[in-house]
Amino acid sequence: MGPGKIRGVLSPVVTPFTADLAPDPERFVRHCRWLLSQDVGLAVFGTNSEANSLSLDERVELLDRLVEGGIDPARMMPGTGCCALTDSVRLTAHAVKAGCAGVLMLPPFYYKGVTDEGLFRSFAEVIERVGDRRLRVYLYHIPPVAQVAITLGLIERLLKAYPDTVAGIKDSSGDWNNTKAVLDAFAASGFDVFPGSETFLLAGMRGGGAGCISATANVNPGPIARLAATWQAADADQQQQRLDAVRTIMQGYVMIPALKAAIARWSGDAAWSTVRPPLVALAPEQSADLVRKLEAVRFDMPGLRG
Amino acid sequence: MGPGKIRGVLSPVVTPFTADLAPDPERFVRHCRWLLSQDVGLAVFGTNSEANSLSLDERVELLDRLVEGGIDPARMMPGTGCCALTDSVRLTAHAVKAGCAGVLMLPPFYYKGVTDEGLFRSFAEVIERVGDRRLRVYLYHIPPVAQVAITLGLIERLLKAYPDTVAGIKDSSGDWNNTKAVLDAFAASGFDVFPGSETFLLAGMRGGGAGCISATANVNPGPIARLAATWQAADADQQQQRLDAVRTIMQGYVMIPALKAAIARWSGDAAWSTVRPPLVALAPEQSADLVRKLEAVRFDMPGLRG
Repeated sequence: MGPGKIRGVLSPVVTPFTADLAPDPERFVRHCRWLLSQDVGLAVFGTNSEANSLSLDERVELLDRLVEGGIDPARMMPGTGCCALTDSVRLTAHAVKAGCAGVLMLPPFYYKGVTDEGLFRSFAEVIERVGDRRLRVYLYHIPPVAQVAITLGLIERLLKAYPDTVAGIKDSSGDWNNTKAVLDAFAASGFDVFPGSETFLLAGMRGGGAGCISATANVNPGPIARLAATWQAADADQQQQRLDAVRTIMQGYVMIPALKAAIARWSGDAAWSTVRPPLVALAPEQSADLVRKLEAVRFDMPGLRG
Repeated sequence: MGPGKIRGVLSPVVTPFTADLAPDPERFVRHCRWLLSQDVGLAVFGTNSEANSLSLDERVELLDRLVEGGIDPARMMPGTGCCALTDSVRLTAHAVKAGCAGVLMLPPFYYKGVTDEGLFRSFAEVIERVGDRRLRVYLYHIPPVAQVAITLGLIERLLKAYPDTVAGIKDSSGDWNNTKAVLDAFAASGFDVFPGSETFLLAGMRGGGAGCISATANVNPGPIARLAATWQAADADQQQQRLDAVRTIMQGYVMIPALKAAIARWSGDAAWSTVRPPLVALAPEQSADLVRKLEAVRFDMPGLRG
C-alpha cells in the first residue's frame, strides 16, 4: 500500500436532481459531507450516481462545486470512464487537476465484443493523454451493466505498462470467484481490490482487499466502514450478517431509486426521490414498503437529518 | 408517407480519423458526397460511425462541417441518442436547427433492465425539451449492441403521444420476426420502418418498409439503392442475392474496421483504415484477405477514387 492511497469504504454517491431534472449541487455537497462524517469516501460519478445520465459538463461542474464546497478531493475517486476517448481524457484530466485521490474508469461500453487489445489501447490513450504522474487509475469491472469486461489478462498488461498509474480495481461482477482470482493474482503487489458490494467486504479483507465501493454505502455507511476498519475483530462475522440484512432488503427494489427513497425518508427531504430517465422513482407504496422493512431491522441514518 | 420524409437507403457513415485519432472533416465530407452520388442518404453518427466514440462537441462540429461543406441536411438523419438526457437534447436540437430530415435516436444505453415507462420518459423529455415542430424522431432498436430494446408497446405509446414527431424506426435486431411485427403493427399508418441491414431490404419493401439503413451501404451503396428503387422489378430476387454475397463477406470480419479497410483499398487512401479505440484496425493480412474475397465477386466502389 502506497502512502496516501485511498482505501476503505467508498460510496458511489447518488446524484440529487431538482424537480426539472437538473443536478442539485447543494444537496450533493451535503450528502458528501455526511458520508465523510461516516468515514466513507466518495466514488462520485459511479453507476449508482446516474453518472452516465449526466453530460460531461454537468459532471465537471458538480466536481468543481464539491471542491468549492470544501469537500476534500483526497477522499474522492470520481468515475471518469466514458464511451468516447476524448470525454474520458477531459474528465480524467479535470479530476487529477482537482487533486482527486484517483479515478474509477469504466471501459468504453457501447461497442460490444471488443478485444483486450482495443481496451488496452483505450486505457493507454487516456493515461498517455492525461500525462500526469499524479494520476491513479482504478479499473471498473461491471460486466452486468457495462457488458464489457476487464479481464485478468488486461489488468496484467496495464500494470506492466503503467505500474505507477494503474492502482486498483472495483470488481462489480458480483462473482466472488472473479474477485478472488484478482486478489490472488495482484493484491500482494499493492494493487488495491475493491469488491463492488459489502456482501464481499469481509471475505475481501481476509483475502488482501482494500475495502469496498458499494451502492448501499450511500445509506448504511457507518456500519460498513466499521467492518472495514475492524474486520479482524471477534464480531466481524456478525457485523457482516447485519450488513447483509440491509443489503438484502435494498436489493428487493431497483437499487438507485431505492437508495434515493431511503435518503428521502431518513433526511426528511422528499426531493431526494427524483431520478433522471430512463430510471423511474419508486411508487409511493414501494417506498413505504422499503421503509417498513428497513425499520424492522432497526436501520438508521444517524446525523443525516441536518 | 408524408411529403419530403427521408426514405430509401441510408448509410451510417463511417467517421474517418487522422493519425492522432481526431475526426477528419475533409475525408468525412468527401465520403458523404460520394454516398449521395450513389443515391444513399446519410445516417451520420450511427453505430458504424463510431459515434459513441466521439464527444458531443466532436459530433456537433462534424455536423456543422458537413453543412458548411454543402451536404444537403434534407438527406441527413444523424444519430442523436446518448446516455445522458441533456446530451440527447443538445445534439437533437442542433440537428433540427441544421435542417436535418430527422434524427435516429438510441435509447439511453448504460442502465440495463430499465422499464418502458422510463424509456418513454426519456424520449418524451427529449422531444418536449427540443420543442420544435420540425423534429422527426426515428427510434433506434439495436439490442445486440445497446442491450436496451424498443418494444412494440413503447412505439405505440410514443406514437400516441407524439404522432407528428415519431416518424419511424431503424430495426437492427437482426430478427426478421421483430421487423415484420413492427411493419404489421405500424407501417400502414405512415410509420417508416428501416431494417438495419440490406439482408432484409427486399422482404422489408414487400412488407411496406421504407428502405434500409445499413453499414454496408458505406461500401456497396449503388447496388443497395438500386434494389430499394426497383424492388418490384423482375430481377429483384437476383439483386438481393448479389447484395447478400457482399454482405456475407463483410460479416466475416469486425464490421467497422472492415468497412474502413475496403474504403482504404478502393479509394487508394490508406488513412481510412484508422479506427478509434476500443476498436482495432484489421491486420494487413486480414485486409488483404477481405479485398481478395470482394474482388472475387467483382465488387467495386465506382467513382470513389477522387
